[in-house]
Amino acid sequence: MRMVDLIRKKRNGEVFEENEIEFIVKGCTDGSIPDYQLSALMMAICFQGMTKAETAQLTLAMARSGDTVDLSAVEGITVDKHSTGGVGDKTSLIIVPTAAACGVKIAKMSGRGLGHTGGTVDKMESIPGMRTDLNKEDFFAVVNRVGCAVIGQSGNLCPADKKLYALRDVTATVDSIPLIASSIMSKKIAAGSDRILLDVKTGSGAFMKTQAEAEALAREMVDIGAQVGRKTVALITDMDRPLGHAIGNALEIIEVCETLHGRGPQDLTAECIELAANMIYLGEKAEDMETARKMAKEAMENGTAFEKLCAMVEVQGGDASYLRDTEKFALGKVQKIVCAPESGWITRAHAEQIGRASVLLGAGRETKESVIDFGAGIVLHKNKGDYVKAGEPLATLYAADEAKCAQAEKALLEAFAFGGAEPEGHALVLARIE
Amino acid sequence: MRMVDLIRKKRNGEVFEENEIEFIVKGCTDGSIPDYQLSALMMAICFQGMTKAETAQLTLAMARSGDTVDLSAVEGITVDKHSTGGVGDKTSLIIVPTAAACGVKIAKMSGRGLGHTGGTVDKMESIPGMRTDLNKEDFFAVVNRVGCAVIGQSGNLCPADKKLYALRDVTATVDSIPLIASSIMSKKIAAGSDRILLDVKTGSGAFMKTQAEAEALAREMVDIGAQVGRKTVALITDMDRPLGHAIGNALEIIEVCETLHGRGPQDLTAECIELAANMIYLGEKAEDMETARKMAKEAMENGTAFEKLCAMVEVQGGDASYLRDTEKFALGKVQKIVCAPESGWITRAHAEQIGRASVLLGAGRETKESVIDFGAGIVLHKNKGDYVKAGEPLATLYAADEAKCAQAEKALLEAFAFGGAEPEGHALVLARIE
Repeated sequence: MRMVDLIRKKRNGEVFEENEIEFIVKGCTDGSIPDYQLSALMMAICFQGMTKAETAQLTLAMARSGDTVDLSAVEGITVDKHSTGGVGDKTSLIIVPTAAACGVKIAKMSGRGLGHTGGTVDKMESIPGMRTDLNKEDFFAVVNRVGCAVIGQSGNLCPADKKLYALRDVTATVDSIPLIASSIMSKKIAAGSDRILLDVKTGSGAFMKTQAEAEALAREMVDIGAQVGRKTVALITDMDRPLGHAIGNALEIIEVCETLHGRGPQDLTAECIELAANMIYLGEKAEDMETARKMAKEAMENGTAFEKLCAMVEVQGGDASYLRDTEKFALGKVQKIVCAPESGWITRAHAEQIGRASVLLGAGRETKESVIDFGAGIVLHKNKGDYVKAGEPLATLYAADEAKCAQAEKALLEAFAFGGAEPEGHALVLARIE
Repeated sequence: MRMVDLIRKKRNGEVFEENEIEFIVKGCTDGSIPDYQLSALMMAICFQGMTKAETAQLTLAMARSGDTVDLSAVEGITVDKHSTGGVGDKTSLIIVPTAAACGVKIAKMSGRGLGHTGGTVDKMESIPGMRTDLNKEDFFAVVNRVGCAVIGQSGNLCPADKKLYALRDVTATVDSIPLIASSIMSKKIAAGSDRILLDVKTGSGAFMKTQAEAEALAREMVDIGAQVGRKTVALITDMDRPLGHAIGNALEIIEVCETLHGRGPQDLTAECIELAANMIYLGEKAEDMETARKMAKEAMENGTAFEKLCAMVEVQGGDASYLRDTEKFALGKVQKIVCAPESGWITRAHAEQIGRASVLLGAGRETKESVIDFGAGIVLHKNKGDYVKAGEPLATLYAADEAKCAQAEKALLEAFAFGGAEPEGHALVLARIE
């Protein structure tokens, strides 16, 4: 088998056999296929697409290209969750303990933030002492003891996907639905859970700018899950404006605690109930979605979800006293209130631009090597759809110095637009695909 | 400017600015753009194409990426000629001296053979002593003294094209009309002649399998010539069956001499008159094509073209006595006559397969490193369109040993098909594009 012939085959719109896909993934993993052939193939796939069967085969081959997690040591049905990434998206740290409080087993590997989107592992590390690098045995032990654990991705998970993703990033071949779908699903499959909940975001702060694109990606991933025997459900959720009020690591942990005390922002709370209910349903802890929603709501209101979060943090080495008294978190020593420049309805709170403003404050990474300031970030006092008077506080910025605040204020104000009429609202959860 | 953005631009079907094309060619030449980005761009171009203006800009940028030949030291209008390559295509060595005998100035750089197609430089080197590596001064001196010279390509002609072509070859991105056209024309433009005659072959032994594809490529190249101020004419010629009888280096030189004595195969002679006439016309040595044809025919019949070839060979160090007495050439010591396995009309003499049979005999190169046996090859006694009786000689094979002959005989017979009806004949010169 020669790679040049396989590239030509895909360029001509033909369908790969399973052994051809295995040849490509093997050659990608062991380095026997040079990057210039892989990138040419990725571009051909962008134009010619892949069938459902090809996409599932690619996913499985990439999942098997490195370590795979065997969760048989965990009792019960394991449910994983993945978000395509957003601004202010701290849902994992709310729904994981909520679903675990309802009996679902969750052994989750999360990523770090890059660019305008945050990452769960970074947020957790803003809790002093918190370890996200547990070895397999400790990871399973925490899940068995607490019901849930969230750690960072292990060293050699899906090396083929890692290599292809890095190449796609520099060759303008990222946005291909089968390639995105197989990249996400390969990592979820390698991570070992029985069932998978996907949160596919759409809007200005999301990778998928339109609901149609988000639904197409979700459909592709749900179908992969079905083909490889991992039941998968996807929710399409709004990321046109930031989710909740807080953007930034410690700030988001504080909002997580507030939400788990029933005092969280309405949008975030509602979305988390829906997501947690789906995990409960997938974990077969409820007969139907209505029951699952009630269970999720109750766990968030009666404190059991919050206690589950504290327990998980403690066994992962974190200081849970910070969760019980969030004033202990050291926030940016420079705090600046940004006021509305005019009166009107907020018709636009561009999530990606607001995410970029938070990166300017130090809350995110420009590059993989950037160091995060856990105390930096933004708390929004108003969001898209709210009415604001000129001079009223729009947001508070947290940073280590004035210069960062000044830069971020400018970026933040550019993300907002004001108008004479109330913008049309729309649902937070736009669709459910299974 | 970032290469990833340029790849995305082409992927989205947009049109490059001239400075963007210059950035790409510069980065390709100096190595600052990695191969994996170049190959992704080539694949995007295969799908999205390029405008006439983009193709002309790419051609000029590649032509300027290395050395360019300044032919102002040669007096008169210089005319170059390029063939897209075929089997038994020895036309250059017939038409160059013919046109030169009619007063046209020709300073031609030729290539070597690869795969099933032969190369003029290899054929010339089968003449003992012949030098094809003249320096510029000697090259110009030969042209001024004799009227024509044919040498190999200099070291640093179009390095950007060289790199891109090597990448395209291993990433299934060779067959894109704007990429082929710019690759060929960049070398012709760097080689410095005022006017260019293109021989675009079509059929089973050619790169362009159909006449429509060949015409599209010819049109693209003629348009590039017009845009960059180098008048270009293209002939579309048949390469569905080998041209002439001889395939192999010394064998073809013998046929060249026969043809320049008026004893050549009818197809080869007719095609050469047409090609030479076009060079004479482009070189403004005839008022119209009819006069140019007469001049070409006369030069081939009255021996002046043959004497021009001998003169060129002599000043390039070759032993012209081989041309005057072609029995001096050492041919393969094993000679095997292949007979027709059945009676009938020859309905197929697949040029590429016959070319491959000649490579098996040692007449061509499998890879760039292969060593050529100048005395090896095939002389066809019958070609497509001829009637043959079972047992009648079809071809004579020349090789260094029996094993090569046996292998090649098998391959050769597979290239032929016989039928009960005379196959439809068609013209050798199918179209002329200017």
